[in-house]
Amino acid sequence: MFTDLPEEQLRGYRSTVPEPEGFDAFWRGSIAVARERAVAPRLTEVDTGLTAIRTWDVEFSGWNGQPIRAWLRAPAHAEGPLPAVVHYVGYGGGRGSALDELAYSAAGYAHLLMDTRGQGSGWSEGATPDDFGTGPQAPGVMTRGIGSIETYYYGRFFTDAVMAVDAARSLDLVDGERIAVHGGSQGGAAALAAGALADDVRAVVARVPFLCDIPRAITITDAKPFHEIVEYLAVHRGEIASVLHVLSHIDGVHFASRITAPLLVTAALMDAVVPPSGPFAAFNASPSSAKDLLLHPYNGHEGGGPEDTAAALAFLARHLGSEGTRA
Amino acid sequence: MFTDLPEEQLRGYRSTVPEPEGFDAFWRGSIAVARERAVAPRLTEVDTGLTAIRTWDVEFSGWNGQPIRAWLRAPAHAEGPLPAVVHYVGYGGGRGSALDELAYSAAGYAHLLMDTRGQGSGWSEGATPDDFGTGPQAPGVMTRGIGSIETYYYGRFFTDAVMAVDAARSLDLVDGERIAVHGGSQGGAAALAAGALADDVRAVVARVPFLCDIPRAITITDAKPFHEIVEYLAVHRGEIASVLHVLSHIDGVHFASRITAPLLVTAALMDAVVPPSGPFAAFNASPSSAKDLLLHPYNGHEGGGPEDTAAALAFLARHLGSEGTRA
Amino acid sequence: MFTDLPEEQLRGYRSTVPEPEGFDAFWRGSIAVARERAVAPRLTEVDTGLTAIRTWDVEFSGWNGQPIRAWLRAPAHAEGPLPAVVHYVGYGGGRGSALDELAYSAAGYAHLLMDTRGQGSGWSEGATPDDFGTGPQAPGVMTRGIGSIETYYYGRFFTDAVMAVDAARSLDLVDGERIAVHGGSQGGAAALAAGALADDVRAVVARVPFLCDIPRAITITDAKPFHEIVEYLAVHRGEIASVLHVLSHIDGVHFASRITAPLLVTAALMDAVVPPSGPFAAFNASPSSAKDLLLHPYNGHEGGGPEDTAAALAFLARHLGSEGTRA
Amino acid sequence: MFTDLPEEQLRGYRSTVPEPEGFDAFWRGSIAVARERAVAPRLTEVDTGLTAIRTWDVEFSGWNGQPIRAWLRAPAHAEGPLPAVVHYVGYGGGRGSALDELAYSAAGYAHLLMDTRGQGSGWSEGATPDDFGTGPQAPGVMTRGIGSIETYYYGRFFTDAVMAVDAARSLDLVDGERIAVHGGSQGGAAALAAGALADDVRAVVARVPFLCDIPRAITITDAKPFHEIVEYLAVHRGEIASVLHVLSHIDGVHFASRITAPLLVTAALMDAVVPPSGPFAAFNASPSSAKDLLLHPYNGHEGGGPEDTAAALAFLARHLGSEGTRA
Amino acid sequence: MFTDLPEEQLRGYRSTVPEPEGFDAFWRGSIAVARERAVAPRLTEVDTGLTAIRTWDVEFSGWNGQPIRAWLRAPAHAEGPLPAVVHYVGYGGGRGSALDELAYSAAGYAHLLMDTRGQGSGWSEGATPDDFGTGPQAPGVMTRGIGSIETYYYGRFFTDAVMAVDAARSLDLVDGERIAVHGGSQGGAAALAAGALADDVRAVVARVPFLCDIPRAITITDAKPFHEIVEYLAVHRGEIASVLHVLSHIDGVHFASRITAPLLVTAALMDAVVPPSGPFAAFNASPSSAKDLLLHPYNGHEGGGPEDTAAALAFLARHLGSEGTRA
Amino acid sequence: MFTDLPEEQLRGYRSTVPEPEGFDAFWRGSIAVARERAVAPRLTEVDTGLTAIRTWDVEFSGWNGQPIRAWLRAPAHAEGPLPAVVHYVGYGGGRGSALDELAYSAAGYAHLLMDTRGQGSGWSEGATPDDFGTGPQAPGVMTRGIGSIETYYYGRFFTDAVMAVDAARSLDLVDGERIAVHGGSQGGAAALAAGALADDVRAVVARVPFLCDIPRAITITDAKPFHEIVEYLAVHRGEIASVLHVLSHIDGVHFASRITAPLLVTAALMDAVVPPSGPFAAFNASPSSAKDLLLHPYNGHEGGGPEDTAAALAFLARHLGSEGTRA
Repeated sequence: MFTDLPEEQLRGYRSTVPEPEGFDAFWRGSIAVARERAVAPRLTEVDTGLTAIRTWDVEFSGWNGQPIRAWLRAPAHAEGPLPAVVHYVGYGGGRGSALDELAYSAAGYAHLLMDTRGQGSGWSEGATPDDFGTGPQAPGVMTRGIGSIETYYYGRFFTDAVMAVDAARSLDLVDGERIAVHGGSQGGAAALAAGALADDVRAVVARVPFLCDIPRAITITDAKPFHEIVEYLAVHRGEIASVLHVLSHIDGVHFASRITAPLLVTAALMDAVVPPSGPFAAFNASPSSAKDLLLHPYNGHEGGGPEDTAAALAFLARHLGSEGTRA
Repeated sequence: MFTDLPEEQLRGYRSTVPEPEGFDAFWRGSIAVARERAVAPRLTEVDTGLTAIRTWDVEFSGWNGQPIRAWLRAPAHAEGPLPAVVHYVGYGGGRGSALDELAYSAAGYAHLLMDTRGQGSGWSEGATPDDFGTGPQAPGVMTRGIGSIETYYYGRFFTDAVMAVDAARSLDLVDGERIAVHGGSQGGAAALAAGALADDVRAVVARVPFLCDIPRAITITDAKPFHEIVEYLAVHRGEIASVLHVLSHIDGVHFASRITAPLLVTAALMDAVVPPSGPFAAFNASPSSAKDLLLHPYNGHEGGGPEDTAAALAFLARHLGSEGTRA
Repeated sequence: MFTDLPEEQLRGYRSTVPEPEGFDAFWRGSIAVARERAVAPRLTEVDTGLTAIRTWDVEFSGWNGQPIRAWLRAPAHAEGPLPAVVHYVGYGGGRGSALDELAYSAAGYAHLLMDTRGQGSGWSEGATPDDFGTGPQAPGVMTRGIGSIETYYYGRFFTDAVMAVDAARSLDLVDGERIAVHGGSQGGAAALAAGALADDVRAVVARVPFLCDIPRAITITDAKPFHEIVEYLAVHRGEIASVLHVLSHIDGVHFASRITAPLLVTAALMDAVVPPSGPFAAFNASPSSAKDLLLHPYNGHEGGGPEDTAAALAFLARHLGSEGTRA
Repeated sequence: MFTDLPEEQLRGYRSTVPEPEGFDAFWRGSIAVARERAVAPRLTEVDTGLTAIRTWDVEFSGWNGQPIRAWLRAPAHAEGPLPAVVHYVGYGGGRGSALDELAYSAAGYAHLLMDTRGQGSGWSEGATPDDFGTGPQAPGVMTRGIGSIETYYYGRFFTDAVMAVDAARSLDLVDGERIAVHGGSQGGAAALAAGALADDVRAVVARVPFLCDIPRAITITDAKPFHEIVEYLAVHRGEIASVLHVLSHIDGVHFASRITAPLLVTAALMDAVVPPSGPFAAFNASPSSAKDLLLHPYNGHEGGGPEDTAAALAFLARHLGSEGTRA
Repeated sequence: MFTDLPEEQLRGYRSTVPEPEGFDAFWRGSIAVARERAVAPRLTEVDTGLTAIRTWDVEFSGWNGQPIRAWLRAPAHAEGPLPAVVHYVGYGGGRGSALDELAYSAAGYAHLLMDTRGQGSGWSEGATPDDFGTGPQAPGVMTRGIGSIETYYYGRFFTDAVMAVDAARSLDLVDGERIAVHGGSQGGAAALAAGALADDVRAVVARVPFLCDIPRAITITDAKPFHEIVEYLAVHRGEIASVLHVLSHIDGVHFASRITAPLLVTAALMDAVVPPSGPFAAFNASPSSAKDLLLHPYNGHEGGGPEDTAAALAFLARHLGSEGTRA
Repeated sequence: MFTDLPEEQLRGYRSTVPEPEGFDAFWRGSIAVARERAVAPRLTEVDTGLTAIRTWDVEFSGWNGQPIRAWLRAPAHAEGPLPAVVHYVGYGGGRGSALDELAYSAAGYAHLLMDTRGQGSGWSEGATPDDFGTGPQAPGVMTRGIGSIETYYYGRFFTDAVMAVDAARSLDLVDGERIAVHGGSQGGAAALAAGALADDVRAVVARVPFLCDIPRAITITDAKPFHEIVEYLAVHRGEIASVLHVLSHIDGVHFASRITAPLLVTAALMDAVVPPSGPFAAFNASPSSAKDLLLHPYNGHEGGGPEDTAAALAFLARHLGSEGTRA
C-alpha cells in the first residue's frame, strides 16, 4: 500500500527540518582534518577470474585519515583516463564481493565502490573497521555516538564519502573532471552528502535516499533502520532535543539544498523503509537546474531496481559526456 | 538453526525416492518432440549501455518447439568460439535485466541465461509465457498441471533447459565442446536435469539445488515453494500417490544419478527453503568421478552467495579448459 | 481497526475508474463465442449419503465452450421447476465437497455451485482446469494472462459465470424466470459480472465483493489477492498503464453500473482483504431501484458470515417470489 | 512439516499419563448431581428459511442442572423416531448459526448440536453462559478454575456433553437405541468423554481430538489452546503438579480407554494445534473392537475436513443401522 | 510510528462517548452493596527476606463483599500513620511477587497493591478469584459478562478498586487524609475509577490509562486487549448497541469528568495498545484544577517507564504533603 | 515447547567446546592492565525520592582503566560494613533507573549494579560508553571486534565485571569478605566470568546464563542475540574457525569450570533465547561443592522471574552469612 502522502502532495513537499547553526563549519572542519591526514590511495590488483574487467583492492584515507577499503574496477580494454563513478552502499552491507556490481565498470567507468566502516556484516561483506568508540547505543549504527555530532557515526561515514571522491580524483586512471557519485538507500544519503560537500562532483545519483527529513520519517514508519532512532529515544527520553539536533547535521535535505550539479533522485510510493516524502523533500530542496525524479508507484524499497541502474547509466552518460563511448 | 540432519549423517545420506518406470522414456520423448519442432535461435543485439560486454536478446525453441527467451552475453573484446555457460534461475524470477549477472560474460564465457516460462514476476522480470493450460492448482507453479507428468509444469521447464544447451551449441560464438550448465535453487534443479539429459555437457554447477528428494523435503519444511505441494495435497487428499508419482519424474536425485560430468553442488546447513538433505542426496547419487560439494554451515538459502559464484568460476575454468584465458 | 474511509464518506463514495472503450463489445463477443460452442449440461447424480437433498455432478460449457464442473443440488422432496441460485466461490477455492454449502438447496432452491477454473486447491477442492496458457505471472491467478483482456484469466472466469446462468436455465428442474446469482468475495465479483451480463437475472447477491474499484484498492491494502497485482507491477514497471487498462474491463464497478435487478451488497469496515470502498463503489454505481447494503462495522473479510447467508435467503425469497414456500 | 513422531512410531504410541485415583468416582458424582437436577428439554421451533430441514432451539439441563442451549435439526419429511447424532464443537465457538452444519440432518439424523458454555465468541456464536466463577486464569478457558477438578471448566463442559446424550434420548423424535456422539478438536474431546461416560452410546466419532495425552502435548507445541496451560504454569510455577493432576481427570486417553463402542478417530501428521500423538494415544487406548483411524499425512488441524465428514456419515450409517435409509 | 492524531489535535481532543443514564446510580449502588457486606481487612505479615521493607498479605472485601487479595508494604523503620498509595495493575497480571514494585514503600508510603480478580496468570501471579459466572465471551476478561453492566467484569473490578481505598483507610498504619490512587494501563483505568468514586482521594496517577474513549479506540487499533471487544462484536453482530452501552458505564472519560483531585496522566504517541486519544480525552474531561499530562513522543505502551514512576513519586510527594520526609 | 534436549539428558550434558590455549593468560593479562590503571571509585549520592534506600551514582575503573558507571544502593538504616551483591544486567540494557531492582538493597545488601558499556538503549538506560572501535560487525555487540580476542567486546565487558568486584571491595560500606556476584542472561554470563576471575567471590548466582556452550547454541536457535553470530558468519564465511576460537575465550563453560564458590544456576526448558543445554553445561562443568540448579520446565527466557530472585536472596543469605539479619 502507499506508505506516505498522495503523489500530488509529495510533488510539492518541503521539509521543515531546521538547519543547525554551524552546519557548514562542522563539515568543513571534518573534511579539513581528514585531508590533512590523508595519504595517497594504495591499490593492489586482484585476480577475480574476470577477464573483461580489472579489479584493485583499494585503501584510501577517510575520516581523520583512517584507512577505508574499496574496490576499484575498470574495463580491461579501456584506455584511461576514464570518467569515474564513486559508489556508496546500503545499510548493513560492505563493499561485498568483487564479482558483484559489475555494471558500472562494464559500462566504461572507473568504478570506486567504497566499503562502509563498521558495517559489512548484513547482506554483503565489508573489511573496514569503525575505529572509534561509542556511547550507549541501540543495535545498528544509527545511534552510535549520537551524543554529539563530533562523535556521531554518520559524521565519520559522510566524511569518508567525501574523501572517496578525493581518492578517485588522485588516480591516474581517472579523469578528475568527470566524477559522479552514486548510491542507493544509505548509499543514496552518502551520494547527497558527497554531492554537496566534495569538490567538483559532476553528477549525483541518489536512489531511494535514506536519512532525508528525519524528524518526519521516524514518526511515520516502524521499519528499521529509521526505527533504531525511535528505540533509542524510547529509552533515552531526556535526549530527544539533542538527538534531533545531532541528526539535523546529517539530514539529506540540507545536503540537497547545496547540490547544484545534475541530480537524479528515485523514490517509490510503497516504500516503508524510506517513505517517499524524504526523497521528495531532498529533491525539492536542491537548486540544481538539471534534476530528474524517477517515481515508482508500485514498488517498495527496492525502488526501480535494475531500471534505476539503467536510468543511472543513461543519466551518467549524459552528464559525464560519456555517451556513445565504447571502450 | 540447523534445518536438517547433522552434517555427519548428511555426508552419507541417500534418498529412497523410487525411480518411476519409464523415466528415461518420458524424457527422451519430450526432448525428441522439442528437437523435431525446433528452429534456429533468433538473436537481436541490444544496447545496454555496457561497453565491455555485448548482449543479445535470444529466442530459442523449447518444449514442444515453443519460443523461450534468454539473454546471451559475451565479452566485447573476445574472439569466439568461446566456452559457454548455460544458466537457469530461481523460483519466481525470469531472465531479469540485461544489467544483472554480468560475472559469467565478464569472465570470458558466452553466457546464455534462460528465461523461465510463466514465472518472471517475483524478483526479476521474465518475458516467456507458459503456453499450456492447467488443472486445479495452488498458487505458484509447483502444482501446475500436476495431474500427470505429461501436463506437469516441470516437464516443460526441464525440457526447455535441455533445449537451451542445444541452442547454445548451435551458435557460432560458442565452442560446442565446452558447454557447462549452472544455476541456483530452481536453477540448480534445472542444471541437474540438463546435466543428465542434454548432450555432452562438460560441467554441472548446482547451487543449493531445489527439487531433490522431494518426498522427504515436503515433510521437513513449511517454507515455500516446497510447501505449495503440501497445500495442494492438503486439499486433494485423494491424489497423494499420483502426485508423488508425478514428482518422482522430476526429482533431482534421479537426474544426479545420471550425471557423469564434473559436478559442483553447494548446500547450507541452515537452509529452510531447500533443506540440505536434498542437495546431499543428489550429490551422493551422482556417479561423477570429479564431484565437489561446498558446504556452508551458517548460511540459509543464500548458500555461499558470491563465494559460490567464485567457486563456480574456478570450477568452470578447470573443467572447461578456460583457466588463465584473458580475453 | 477500520481499513478504509469513515462510514459517512463510504456512503457517498464513487469510483473514478474509467470504463474502457469496447467494454460491452468485449463481453458480448466473449459470451457469443461461448454460446456458439456450448453443449447441453451433463448431469450425473451422486450418492452423498444425504437423504433430504439430491446432488448432481454437472459439467456445462463455459468460456470458449470449455467444460466447467459444478454441483447441482435440490431438495429431495421438491417438485420442480424450482427457483434457482447460481453460486460462485471465493479466491483459491473450488466447488468443494458436495456436503458443504447445503443451505440454498435446503431452502428449496435448485442450487448450482460453479467450480472455479484452475483454482480449487486452497481451501476447497476444485475439478476444473484453466485450459489456457499464461505469460509471465505472479503466483495466483490475478495476473494470469494479464498482458491483454483477451488472454486475461478473469475474462474467462466471468464468461464461465455468465454461462452458468445459461446452463441453469436449460435444466428441467429450474424455472428459468426465477434465477438469482450469489457469491462472496471473488464469488461476489462474479455475481456482479453475471448480474450485468447474463440474461434475465432476477436478483444479485454480492457479499464483500472483490475486484471493485481496483486502482484504489491495490494502493490501500497489502493483503492478497489484491497485492498480487502490486507484486506483478513491482517487477513489470513498464506495464502499469496496460495492466490497469486490462483490469478496467473486469472492474465490478462497471458491472454494477449495468445491474438493474434487485441487488444486495454486503461490506465490512474492518475488511483488509476487500477494503469497503470497493463494495460501496459498486453499490453506489448500480441503477437498481431495489438495492440493499448490509454493513458490518466490526467485521473483517468474513463480513456477516451466516448472517449474510440469512439475509441472502430472505432477499432471495422476496425477489424470487419464493417466500413461504415449503417443499 | 510433520509436527510429531514418524507415522510408524505413532501407530504404536501409548501415553504414559497416569490415571488419577477417583477418576470414575468424580465423573459418576458429577453426572449424578446433574441428572438429579435435570428437567425435560425445552424445544422451540424456529423459522430459518429452510424448507427441507426443521430446526428447534433447545434448552436442556447440563452440569448441576444449568441450562445449556443447542440446535436440534431433522429432515422435514422424515418420520421419527430417528437415529441421532449428538455433536460438540471446537474451541472458542458456540452452536453457531442454524444455517451451518446441515449435513447431519440432511443425512436423515436427528442432529443435536450442543452449545459450549461461556465460549461462542470466537468463530461462531454461542448463547450459553458458564455459570461459575473462576480463580486466576489465563485468557481462554483452558485454565478456568484449574485449581481443582471440582472447579475446573472441563469438568462442567464434559458433564454437559454427557447430559446432551440424555437430553437427546428423551426426545420423541429420537430412537434412544441409536445415538452417536461426534465432534472435532475440542468437540472430539467431548465425544470421547461422552463416549466413555454417557449411557449406551452406539458410535463415537472424534476428529483430530484435542485434550489427549496432555502432558506431552503441552511440551511439543506452542500453539493455542494447549499453550494456555503453559502460559498459566509459566506464572504459577508452584502449581505444576496440581495442575497436571487436575488435567489427568479430563485427559482423552482415559476416556478412550473406557470406550467399547465403535470408534472413529482422525488425525493429521502436520497438525500443530493437536499434534497427532494425542489422537493416536487415545485411539490406541480404546478397547473397542470396531475402531478405525483415518490419517491425513499432509494436513494440519483441519484434518480431513469434508472428507472426515463423509467418512463420519459412512461410519455412522454402518453402526447406527441407517445405511441406505432415505427419508 | 505515531498511532493516533497529531499532538496538536490531541491537546484539544474531546471524546463524544455519551454518558449513560443511571451512571452515578449504578456505581453508588454497587459500592453501597459492597460496603454493606464488607468486613475488616485481614493482614498477615510475611517474611520476604527484605529487611528494609515490611510486607503483609492482605485480604479485604471487594465487590459484593468478595475477598480480594493485596500486598501491603511499608518502610520497616517508619512510624505511622503514613500517607498511602493504592495501586492497581495492568491487564493479565496480578499482585505479583512481594519482591516487585518496591519503590512506593521504599519512598515512605504505605503501599497497598491490589490483586486483580480472575487475572494474574499473564505476566505476574495473582491469587484472587472472579467469583461470578460468565455468558459467552471471547478469551480475556474484556467481554466477560458483557451482556449487562450488572454482570460485566469491570463493574466488579472497579468496585474492588473503590473498596481498596476504604480498606487502606481503615488501617492503623495509614493516615486516611492522605491517600492516593495509582496505576498503569488497566491499572490507570482503575485509578480513574477510584479517583472518581472513592471518598476523599487526594491524588490520582493514571499512566497510559486503558479503557478511555472506548468507541474510538476499538476502531483505531488491532492490538489486544481492546481488540477482544472487536472479536466479540464480530461474532455477536446483533449486540453492538448494547455492548457499547454497557461499556459506556466503565469509560474512563466519565470517571475523569468527576475527578477534582490533583490528576497526573501520562500518554505516548507511539502507543498502539492504548492510542493516546484515550488518555487525552480523559485528561481533557477532568475538571481538576491541578492536573498534569506527561507526554512521551517516541514511546509505545511502556510510556515513560521508570520516568513515569519518578514523576509519580514527585507528584505524590507534592500532593500528599510528603515531600522531604525521610523515614 | 521444549527447546532443547530432554531433561534427563540435560542433567548429564557436558559441552565439548575446547578450551583455547592461553585462556588463563589472556584474562590474567587483561585484569592486570585494568588494575594497573584503576583509580578509586567516585561516589555521588543522588536523591531518588526513596527514604528507605540510599543511592549513589558510581564511576569505577573497568577494562584498561576506562570509567564504568553503576548504581550503589544500601538500606538507609543499616550500619556497614555490609555484605555486597555485584549485579550485571541482560543484553541491550544498562543500569537503568535508580528506582528499579530495589530488592537487593532492601534485603540489606550493599548492591552495586554495573552499567553495560555501549549498550543501555534497549530496555533500560545506560550511561557508559564502549570506548573502543570496531571492525565490520552485525548490529548488536555480539560481533563487535570479533576479529581477535584482544579487540572483542566481551573481553572488555567481562574485565569490567571483574573490576566491579574490586571496586565493591574498596568501599567502606562493604565487607570485602562477603561479596557475591549475580546476574541474569548476559548478566549471568558476567557472573560466571567474575565468579571465575575475580578474587574471593563468596557466591555466584547465574540466572539463565547466556554465552555458555556457544558452538552448540548458535546451531539450535534462531533467536537473537545468539543469532547475531550466525548473521556474521553467514557473510564472513571465511572466518568461521577464527570466530569460534575467539568465542571459546568467553564461553561460560570455561568460566564455570573454574568456579569453586557456591553456585546457583537457573534454567528453563522452554527458553529459546538461551537453550537450557548452555546453563546445564556450565553447571555441570563447575567443581563447586555447593551448587544448586533451579529448573523451570514451563518457562521461557524469563526463567523463574521473581521466584529466581527469591531463590537468589535465600542462597545469598545462606552463603554470605546474612540469614536472619534485619537492618
